[in-house]
Amino acid sequence: MSLKFIALSGTVSVTENLYVYEYKDQMMVVDCGVGFPDLEMRGVDLVIPDFGYIVKNKHKLKGIIVSQGHEDHIGALPFLLREVRTPIWTSPLVTSFLNDKLKDYGISGVKVNTFNPMSESFNVGVFRVHPFRVTHSIPDAVGFAIDTPEGRVFHVPEHKMQQEPVDQMPFDKNRANQLASKKVLFLASDCLGANKPGYTIGERQIEDNIFKIANDSKGAVFFTAISSNVGRFQQAINVARKMGRKAVYVGRSVQKKCDMAQELGYLKDSKGTVVSLGKAKGLPRNKIMYIIAGCYGQVGSSLYRVSTKEHGRLHAEKGDTLIFSADPAPPYTKESENLVIDNFIEMGVDVHYYDLDEGLYVSGHGSQEDILELFKITNPDYFIPIGGTVRFMHAYKKLAQAFGAKESDVFELKPGDGVVFENGKANQNIKIPVKEVLVAGLGVGDVGKVVLSDRKTLSQYGVAVVVIKIDPKTKKMVGKLEIVSKGFVFEKSSKKLLSQAVNKLEERIKRNGKLDKKSAATITLSFLQKFFFDETGRRPIIIPVVVET
Amino acid sequence: MSLKFIALSGTVSVTENLYVYEYKDQMMVVDCGVGFPDLEMRGVDLVIPDFGYIVKNKHKLKGIIVSQGHEDHIGALPFLLREVRTPIWTSPLVTSFLNDKLKDYGISGVKVNTFNPMSESFNVGVFRVHPFRVTHSIPDAVGFAIDTPEGRVFHVPEHKMQQEPVDQMPFDKNRANQLASKKVLFLASDCLGANKPGYTIGERQIEDNIFKIANDSKGAVFFTAISSNVGRFQQAINVARKMGRKAVYVGRSVQKKCDMAQELGYLKDSKGTVVSLGKAKGLPRNKIMYIIAGCYGQVGSSLYRVSTKEHGRLHAEKGDTLIFSADPAPPYTKESENLVIDNFIEMGVDVHYYDLDEGLYVSGHGSQEDILELFKITNPDYFIPIGGTVRFMHAYKKLAQAFGAKESDVFELKPGDGVVFENGKANQNIKIPVKEVLVAGLGVGDVGKVVLSDRKTLSQYGVAVVVIKIDPKTKKMVGKLEIVSKGFVFEKSSKKLLSQAVNKLEERIKRNGKLDKKSAATITLSFLQKFFFDETGRRPIIIPVVVET
Repeated sequence: MSLKFIALSGTVSVTENLYVYEYKDQMMVVDCGVGFPDLEMRGVDLVIPDFGYIVKNKHKLKGIIVSQGHEDHIGALPFLLREVRTPIWTSPLVTSFLNDKLKDYGISGVKVNTFNPMSESFNVGVFRVHPFRVTHSIPDAVGFAIDTPEGRVFHVPEHKMQQEPVDQMPFDKNRANQLASKKVLFLASDCLGANKPGYTIGERQIEDNIFKIANDSKGAVFFTAISSNVGRFQQAINVARKMGRKAVYVGRSVQKKCDMAQELGYLKDSKGTVVSLGKAKGLPRNKIMYIIAGCYGQVGSSLYRVSTKEHGRLHAEKGDTLIFSADPAPPYTKESENLVIDNFIEMGVDVHYYDLDEGLYVSGHGSQEDILELFKITNPDYFIPIGGTVRFMHAYKKLAQAFGAKESDVFELKPGDGVVFENGKANQNIKIPVKEVLVAGLGVGDVGKVVLSDRKTLSQYGVAVVVIKIDPKTKKMVGKLEIVSKGFVFEKSSKKLLSQAVNKLEERIKRNGKLDKKSAATITLSFLQKFFFDETGRRPIIIPVVVET
Repeated sequence: MSLKFIALSGTVSVTENLYVYEYKDQMMVVDCGVGFPDLEMRGVDLVIPDFGYIVKNKHKLKGIIVSQGHEDHIGALPFLLREVRTPIWTSPLVTSFLNDKLKDYGISGVKVNTFNPMSESFNVGVFRVHPFRVTHSIPDAVGFAIDTPEGRVFHVPEHKMQQEPVDQMPFDKNRANQLASKKVLFLASDCLGANKPGYTIGERQIEDNIFKIANDSKGAVFFTAISSNVGRFQQAINVARKMGRKAVYVGRSVQKKCDMAQELGYLKDSKGTVVSLGKAKGLPRNKIMYIIAGCYGQVGSSLYRVSTKEHGRLHAEKGDTLIFSADPAPPYTKESENLVIDNFIEMGVDVHYYDLDEGLYVSGHGSQEDILELFKITNPDYFIPIGGTVRFMHAYKKLAQAFGAKESDVFELKPGDGVVFENGKANQNIKIPVKEVLVAGLGVGDVGKVVLSDRKTLSQYGVAVVVIKIDPKTKKMVGKLEIVSKGFVFEKSSKKLLSQAVNKLEERIKRNGKLDKKSAATITLSFLQKFFFDETGRRPIIIPVVVET
């Protein structure tokens, strides 16, 4: 008998975490996250893993365990739960996030079991799961020790070792050490910080830095961070209280996440400091700190709308201060972030952003020393880097080798790759064919390579529709050709080009003699592709419409 | 009488430098660069400034002076020279670059005057120009002291103060101090480093760092930097020589720029070290350093093609080393850079890139202390930040104020804004309407807002063409509707959606009674927009083609 570990997704892409444990006729899934489209995925809202393997084996599925509440770990659950029903186990804050999310997607009847990560263990089929707390950028994040019939393994999707996090939920070294006192077959863990030396620094200093900046402000303070970064919002609230300001949540995502954290007691001392936007109306600007959504300048976010003066209930003005407590935006929202920053500066707002290196954010991911410490705690026979692309898996492998592992003890898995463990030995010989599934609007999986490739061409060169009428009896063209274009050239100033195209194509078609629908379309395509490229250097998509009249 | 200084371009966008000096009926232009499209400018190759004002006043134009050889200072000259003919003055390396560029664009008969930046001065109409050397990331970069009828001004597009640059062309403090011994009316200078504390560090250390890494390599070394960074290539050649390796230029851009620099004596000791790709064929891999183009992972560059194994004459293999001596790629090429890095890592190549912070590049732009030192040398009455966006102009203004300037002595100009100087007093009261001119393929200026907006929609949702035949006599629809789509949904798997659309639209049209071309098109548009959005959450561009038969 053997244990299978499969990275269905979550390697190479950083996000989209989805891992499968399989033993005989039993299967358990760890995490189920979304990814975000890259620049080539035009019009795509989300990327989700390929659930094919799980759906095919759904008779084996005993449940899903979830390590934390970020979208790259929970975001794809609604899509998976549309195809299979199975219970979920997770920590309190994630249960709140999940119940809210399932409601949003109209999914009911899913059993979400909440565990206490400080003490509880539970069974998922043949697997016995022992969660333990890890430090991360969101409260209630955990790693798992998992007892399998082939031995105990550790699965730690994200962790820092820091012992004094703002959320007062440090890495539980006692419990982890205890759980690792048994021999550990393998460690699957986060590799995204594997090329950063040292430990990821603590968050305490950030609060002092926020205070220094906010305390200098003569106007309102705008404070922004990732909406799930409840710990950072706690720090903002602390700063507001110290300065005698009221804190105001702005933006649905910030409001909801903070409310849930508040309910669980994870946001402290906010009473008396946090007030509603309505209540803040009467206060002088220098008594307010807005905790506002949109730290990447996302188009349509609250921060974006304040920057473009389109926010109905809020404005910024000279003397205000804006603090970005976040890393720089990813490429696809970088430009709107730049716009937001510059807009605020132009309004006379004092803007503090990543470039100025003022110690206003830290990574949620552990660095080399955090990873090495986990190696020391678990001392596993095998290593599986997860949650990072090729370069990070590679750096993690180097770390493991420095720790004493052989190169062959480290498995760098691509999506769909898996390892079989049998009698203490490991073999990477599973390869499940998977693809990325794109979510665009209401469609799931109906945008693929062909559509994306057409969108790319359309985005660069536009489209030209050519209408040709032919008489099916005489097999001749009838009337005048027509060309309609979109995104190709500016038609008003390119009339000459288009009328030349019409005339020359008509000549070409007439020279051809007898026509049918197919030959008319073929001639049109090949003639116009060449003509437009020669004249404009562009290759629009050409759609010939041949109508028999 | 008054002096006008106009930033036709070059502020807000960082690139696209283009400045105008005007006195009565005389005009001089400083620099004429291109910009690069942002992510929203789909299908656009280059952005060039709006020459309208210069063309309108071409009878006044006495010449163009050029400060350095980067594309953001010279790239738009061919486009300007198509519209006006005027002499150019610049330094030796830029003359080589320019002559080559004008040949590429098929422009002849332009007089390019080469000055010696160490000693020469010259007249451009009423303006007397005194160039002086500045340290930058390319040899032969200069600033200008310009005598105008309203007094002496300084125009320094980019500079560092560093006294030991690799190209041995340091900022000429003697000449600058001498030129500044007269009263200086204003300083227009680079603001891009205005929020970085300290001096921009020197480049010497980089060479040691390259050596350390390259010397460890057991295979071939690939070294990449921006193609115009001749100084950096000198360092690579030095390292190759020290290690007893041959250096090989790979890529047309690197080859050409290095050849030109070599000819002027700006590349030293390359003889015996640099060999051709053909000659290198016989050498063992550990005797070769490839100096290769494509440091941003640009699709189609030599480095990209090696990474994808499509380079006919070169390959990488396990044991090789790749050194990126460049800053991270801008957003629009970031993903291909990531691909290149990961591909090389997967081939077993040891890759050294920006993230690892190994001291392999420095900015070509001065930081706060470099800027302050220029303030001290020139001590101008007025300040004009150039070459940086809003945030950098703002930081420059703060610096000037720290230096003792009044807020009103600093002019933050948007493209088209200008300042009038009269009797020693300055007024920002010029506003020339300008737009960005987009170059796409062979077209200059025929892609504008409408086309870009259509391209954006096409890129997100694609296009659906609907063919409707009507009988002009009965005013009824004839035959079956047809829908052809591109980039909308994958047609094979969405047959049901499209046939539903056809059926429901037919019903809708039939209900309407009598039809003409216009009403058929209007009904189709409004019906399908709603239908497709309801069913798919997407808003494709719909092109109704109504044919009378």
